[in-house]
Order: sequence, then C-alpha cells, then structure tokens
Amino acid sequence: MALLVLKFGGTSVADVDRIRNAASHVKREVDAGHACAVVVSAMAGHTNQLVALVEQAWGFKERRKQNGAEVSAQYDGSEYDAVVSSGEQVTSGLLALVLQSLGMRARSWQGWQIPLKTDSAHRAARITGVAVDELKARMLEGEVAVVAGFQGIAPGNRISTLGRGGSDTSAVALAAALSADRCDIYTDVDGVYTTDPRVVPKAHRLDKISYEEMLEMASQGAKVLQTRSVELAMQKGVRVLVRSSFEPADLGGKGTDAAEGLGTLVCHEDEIVEQNVVSGIAYARDEAKVTLLKIADKPGVAAQVFCPLAEANINVDMIVQNVSDDGRHTDLTFTVQSADLDRALEVLRKAKESIGYLDLRGSTDIAKVSAIGVGMRSHAGVAAQMFSALAEKGINIEAISTSEIKISVLIDAAYAELAVRTLHSLFGLDSR
Amino acid sequence: MALLVLKFGGTSVADVDRIRNAASHVKREVDAGHACAVVVSAMAGHTNQLVALVEQAWGFKERRKQNGAEVSAQYDGSEYDAVVSSGEQVTSGLLALVLQSLGMRARSWQGWQIPLKTDSAHRAARITGVAVDELKARMLEGEVAVVAGFQGIAPGNRISTLGRGGSDTSAVALAAALSADRCDIYTDVDGVYTTDPRVVPKAHRLDKISYEEMLEMASQGAKVLQTRSVELAMQKGVRVLVRSSFEPADLGGKGTDAAEGLGTLVCHEDEIVEQNVVSGIAYARDEAKVTLLKIADKPGVAAQVFCPLAEANINVDMIVQNVSDDGRHTDLTFTVQSADLDRALEVLRKAKESIGYLDLRGSTDIAKVSAIGVGMRSHAGVAAQMFSALAEKGINIEAISTSEIKISVLIDAAYAELAVRTLHSLFGLDSR
Repeated sequence: MALLVLKFGGTSVADVDRIRNAASHVKREVDAGHACAVVVSAMAGHTNQLVALVEQAWGFKERRKQNGAEVSAQYDGSEYDAVVSSGEQVTSGLLALVLQSLGMRARSWQGWQIPLKTDSAHRAARITGVAVDELKARMLEGEVAVVAGFQGIAPGNRISTLGRGGSDTSAVALAAALSADRCDIYTDVDGVYTTDPRVVPKAHRLDKISYEEMLEMASQGAKVLQTRSVELAMQKGVRVLVRSSFEPADLGGKGTDAAEGLGTLVCHEDEIVEQNVVSGIAYARDEAKVTLLKIADKPGVAAQVFCPLAEANINVDMIVQNVSDDGRHTDLTFTVQSADLDRALEVLRKAKESIGYLDLRGSTDIAKVSAIGVGMRSHAGVAAQMFSALAEKGINIEAISTSEIKISVLIDAAYAELAVRTLHSLFGLDSR
Repeated sequence: MALLVLKFGGTSVADVDRIRNAASHVKREVDAGHACAVVVSAMAGHTNQLVALVEQAWGFKERRKQNGAEVSAQYDGSEYDAVVSSGEQVTSGLLALVLQSLGMRARSWQGWQIPLKTDSAHRAARITGVAVDELKARMLEGEVAVVAGFQGIAPGNRISTLGRGGSDTSAVALAAALSADRCDIYTDVDGVYTTDPRVVPKAHRLDKISYEEMLEMASQGAKVLQTRSVELAMQKGVRVLVRSSFEPADLGGKGTDAAEGLGTLVCHEDEIVEQNVVSGIAYARDEAKVTLLKIADKPGVAAQVFCPLAEANINVDMIVQNVSDDGRHTDLTFTVQSADLDRALEVLRKAKESIGYLDLRGSTDIAKVSAIGVGMRSHAGVAAQMFSALAEKGINIEAISTSEIKISVLIDAAYAELAVRTLHSLFGLDSR
C-alpha cells in the first residue's frame, strides 16, 4: 500500500463528466489498495466568473476609469477569498459524491476543516502548517480525502487563498504533511516535454526531471506546474508525477505500478540515472526589451535606473551593459514582463533628468530561449556550442544570462521557433 | 441606537445591481446609527444550479430510471450541504465588498465562523445554538456583520444547511441570539396582504399580524415567510418586519423610524390594538382529494387507511367521514398534497384487501380556502357566517376543518377565486 496525493486541475474537473473521469483515476488507485487524498481545483472558468463578480461588487472598472489606468484593486482580500474559494468547495463536494456513487468511501475537506493554515496575506497566502492527523487516520481506514485546493484558513478564522495556480501548492504541501509516497498532478498534458511540441514535433516527454530543472523550465515559460509548488516539492522532497487526466484510467488493473512509463516524475537528481547534459529547451515571448541610449558610464547610474523600477514593483530580468565607446557613455538594455513595459517606460521618462540618457526605446519583438540541464554543471563548453549553433543560423543574440544549470539568450522574436528547433537538435533531444 | 437584523432573499440579491440596492437599505440603517447584521440568501437561481450539479454527480436521474420512479435521492447530505452552501458564501462576500465600497465597515460570516450550530440532519438541519459574542461585539463597534444564511455547522465540523427557505430561519435565530430589536425580512413584496392581490384587487397590506395568524397564513398557502421561521419568531418573541427591497432605500434620511407604516410587522397579538375578527383569507390549490367509497363503518378502519399512508411519508390534511347510510358502510374523504396523490392512490390500492372498500377516487380539482384571525376566539358565529355566504353564491363545501383561529373549507377549484372574494368582503377586508 502506498499513500498518494492526486491533484486534478480545472480542465480535469470542468464538468460533471470530467469529474467522473477524475473519479475513475482515483478508483484505480483505491482498487490497487492505496490510501488516497485528492486535491481539486475549481471547474475551469468558475474562478474567473467569481473574480468578475468581486470586481463588479467593488466597482473595480468604474474606479479605474475615475482615477486613471494605474489604479489597482484595493478591495478586501479576505472577502475576495471568501467568494473565490467557493469554487473549490463545489468541486470537492461533487467529487466526493461521485466517488461515493462508485462505491468508495469519501468525504470533502475545506481548507478550514483540515485545517490548512496560512498567513494573512489574503489572495496570495503562504502555507504555515497542515494538520493531517484526522485526515490521515481516515485515509488509512480507506476513506478518500477530497480536499478543496487553493484555499486555507488565515489567523482570525478567515478563509484565505494561495494565489492563482495555488492548488498545485496545496497538493504538494498536503503530500509533504502526509509523508505521501507520491503527488500525482493530473493535467491536460501527459508530462513535461523537452520543449513545446507545437514548435518542435520531435519533442518528447521526459520520464524524469530534477526539481532544479523543473524550476528553471517553469520560470522560463513551461506552464505545466506552478513555480511555487516545485520549490516546495524540492524543499520537502516530495516526488511529483505530472500526468494526463485525459489518458484512460484503466491501466489493465495494474494500478499505480503501471504509472512507471507514464507522465514525468519530478524528483531529486540522484533518482535520474541517465542524465542528459541538457534536459529541455524553454522559450518565453512575454518579455519586452528596454534600451537606454548613451547613459553616463559612471558608478551609481544603474541604481538610478533600477531603484525607481523596483519601487513601481516592476521586475527586471536580463540586464546587458555594453562596453563604453568613449569611456563616458554606454547603452543599457534590460527586459521586463511585456505587461509592465508601458509602466516601465513611464517610470524611466519621469526619471530622465536624474538618470541622464539620450534616448529611450522599448520593444516587445523579442523572445527568450533557454537551454536547461543539471548536466551543465559537469560539462564545459555548453554555452559555446549553443552560441555557435545560433550564429550558424544567422540568429543574433541580444543578451545572455546564465545560471549553473541554465543558459538563456534574448533574440529577435521572428527567430524564436528556429532557435528552439536548432537547440533541441544540437543537444540530442530530438526523439529517436 | 437599535440592534437590527436585515435579511435579503434570493430575488433581492439576484445580481450585483440588486446587491447594491440591498446595500443601500443597509446604509440607511447604519447612517441612522443602528448596529446591523445582514443575512443573505444565494443569488436567485444559484441554489437550483448547485442542486442540479449534485444530482448530476450522484447520477440521480439515471438511478431513478434504473430502479423505478419511487427511488429518492440517497446521496450524502453532508456533501450536498458543502456544495449548496457555497451560494450563500458568495453573496455574503459580495455584499461585504459592496458595503465596504460605500464606506462602511463590514465582514462576511459563514455559518462555521459564527458558529451557528445545528444538529446532524443534513439538508434540513435544526439550529441548536448561535454563538454571537464576537459578532455582536464587532457590530456594536460599527461593523456590519454579513451572515451567509441557510447554513450552519453540524457536529463533526461539517457544513450543514437548514432546508429550503432556511435563510428566514437563520435571520430569526440570529435576531433571537442577538436580542435584536427587530428582524427585517426584505423580499419582493411589500408585506403580508389580507389575501392574494392578484385574486382580490381590493386586498390590502396589513400593518401588523400576530405570530399565530402568520403561521396559519403561511401554512395555508401564503408564501411570504417560511413557517419554521415564524414558529421560531413566536417562540423567541422576535419582532419580524416583512418589507420590500424594491421600495426606494431613501426614506428622506429618516432611518428606521420611517419603517412605521412600511411593511407588515409580525408580532405578539398584544401589540395589535385594533384587531379584526378575520385578518386574512388564504387559499391553496396544491391539495388533492381522495375518496374511499363504502368502507366498513367499524372501529379500526381509519387506522388501516392512514397507517400505510404515514409509513409512505404522505401527509394527510383534512379528513371527513360521512354518516353511515346503513349502519355498516360509509364514505371517507381526505386531502393530501397534489404531488403525493399518485403515491397515495398506489398505497391504498395495495391495501385494498385489508381496508375493504368498494371504490377509490382521486381528484385535484379542489381548492382549500381559509379565513384566519385571532379575533375568532372571542367572536362566535364566524363559521356560520362563512358557510351562509358561500351557500348564497352556490358554492358547495366538501370538507371543513377548523382551529381556534382558522376555518378552512374544501371546495371545487372552479369556485376558488369567487370564494376568496366573497369571504374577503364578508369579513370587512376590502380596502376602504
């Protein structure tokens, strides 16, 4: 017998038929003798409807119009959480009923019933503790625990939510608290791929990927898991299996063991026997480039650029400062999220006098392409190989950033697919 | 300063615009200096959607087909409650946000947060206690308590619901626990009428009605308040004001005091100075008549008829047994809810041998018309007046039942409106 946490996302519980399908996956594991907890998201689209009601109640749009486009919602996060958490409450009850209708013992658990405790940062609360004694005892007696994801209870007995995609984090935190053997994340794709299969048809599913690589993949644009849930899994050593709820639930009565060869296991790198130098190629098109022309090449100027951006809550990613032509002036280029570009330009225009620059340019026609792999640590020359291959295809690199297990390049958006395909081949990831 | 409970039903919070309207009623009371708790139902239609999801999840319709029409839902009431209670959770959060957007302090309270404790009879739980210390303290500091109606917490930390229309009961129970000065039930009509104004255009709103009369009105077909909430109000002495949320919230800055002359106050009969003999005429068309022809006129036969009906959970209302023609046989007539007629006939057909009757007849072409008034206690001859007036119009009375403050007659449905109008005039209720 194993102790499993299964998590189903919004598309996997989008209607009662999909919930029935999720239940058949649970039944397979229960029939195999495993003790199961199931974490559910809200039905796809439901959370957006609830958020729209909250914004309507607060008169969000009217306020934006009154006070200018930069006014953000100031509404009471604890009321937002009370409204929005109801989506997961509904799916947890429905799944429990479906499981019961299939002859299983099951009950729903809201965040406050477990309790899954969080801090008071409503709308994006952090988990501070999960009390699983009663829940676990019932699981071990054969009752399936159906847990409403995304929600918890904050100090003062108020409902809290963990922020968008928080159900992944709920599942991993629950798995950690239960010392579960595995946390299965059922989603609409069948695992983590070497790159986006829509761009590279030869992309293939990875059987295993290390936490560190998954973290880089997630933050570099692969959307299969929330970054936060991967961090937590790494910290707590939770083995996470990303798999498809759209695959048939019937594995010929083989239960969990047949899961070998299904999905992608996110685990410690020691578990991965054959490690490629590069495990995957990620790309992101949602960054924008900002260039400040001819700024003074003197100590302190970078602070004058980046402090006002930080104050405006704008995250800066890659930064390149060219070598000075004349010893007195240089060009500074960096990237921000596309959504923040207009605000970033506004902030820099206001700070023009204190910074001192000739011209300011912004562009969204860029893409960031990254090669990721823990094997890089022990293999020299990966970056050089990468740059040569891109140069051979005539792709100009506008900026570079690296970590121990990742090399990212900023290029013209028009070349994004070509770059991804080139690197996918270069590092031997094309499926055989 | 008064302590008020305000309750808004489903049509009064049907969308965010209606919630804003409800909030303006609350604001009027807050501006007048009153401490307010507001109980809300789910948005109109939302509960039905949630119930449909539950039945779909349990495969309710499929089961009925498989096992015949008499199979009723056997699903887990605690999961039903977890799903269905989410409707009130949403409106409570939304109203709190709207109140905040209007500059008031407000917070939502779920049943488990108060806590409003109930027994374990899920889907129709009874309230066992309401702990209002924290809620009341915050109200007295000027915070509006927005309470999700219809829901509570059952032993074992599970969400419970009070049954359809339970929000009225939530409001009255909360008012009792708070020792509130009044419980205002905002609904889509502006009070309790002497009879249905669609039938009698001369019907008028009652300024006051006693608990006992309201109870009879509610159980005789007037749908403005749930019977259970009236019973509780009577038992706890809660003064209930039925009023319209569709009337303008602005009473010229006069606050609650202007409520005199608005709505209908349900109160102890001592508060009612000028008491009519009859306060209202109620009618119901949802009863059906069952007649057993030529049953044996001997001790025990009534038990043989009514015990199997009781076992099948069928409520019997009016019963008439004719005088025996021959000393050995008689006819027995009684009424059941129309929805139960087919089942009642089925039960009686199966019991034909043990009862012994010549023929069995069922009909839904009947109406029950009732005159209600506490004044009857001290006025003789009310029944005689009533029967004469109906006879004058050629209306045949098929059965009669009476209580201390009510006389009901069963008549041919075709004469229902005529009977109501006749009695409304007879007892001086036509508006002057």
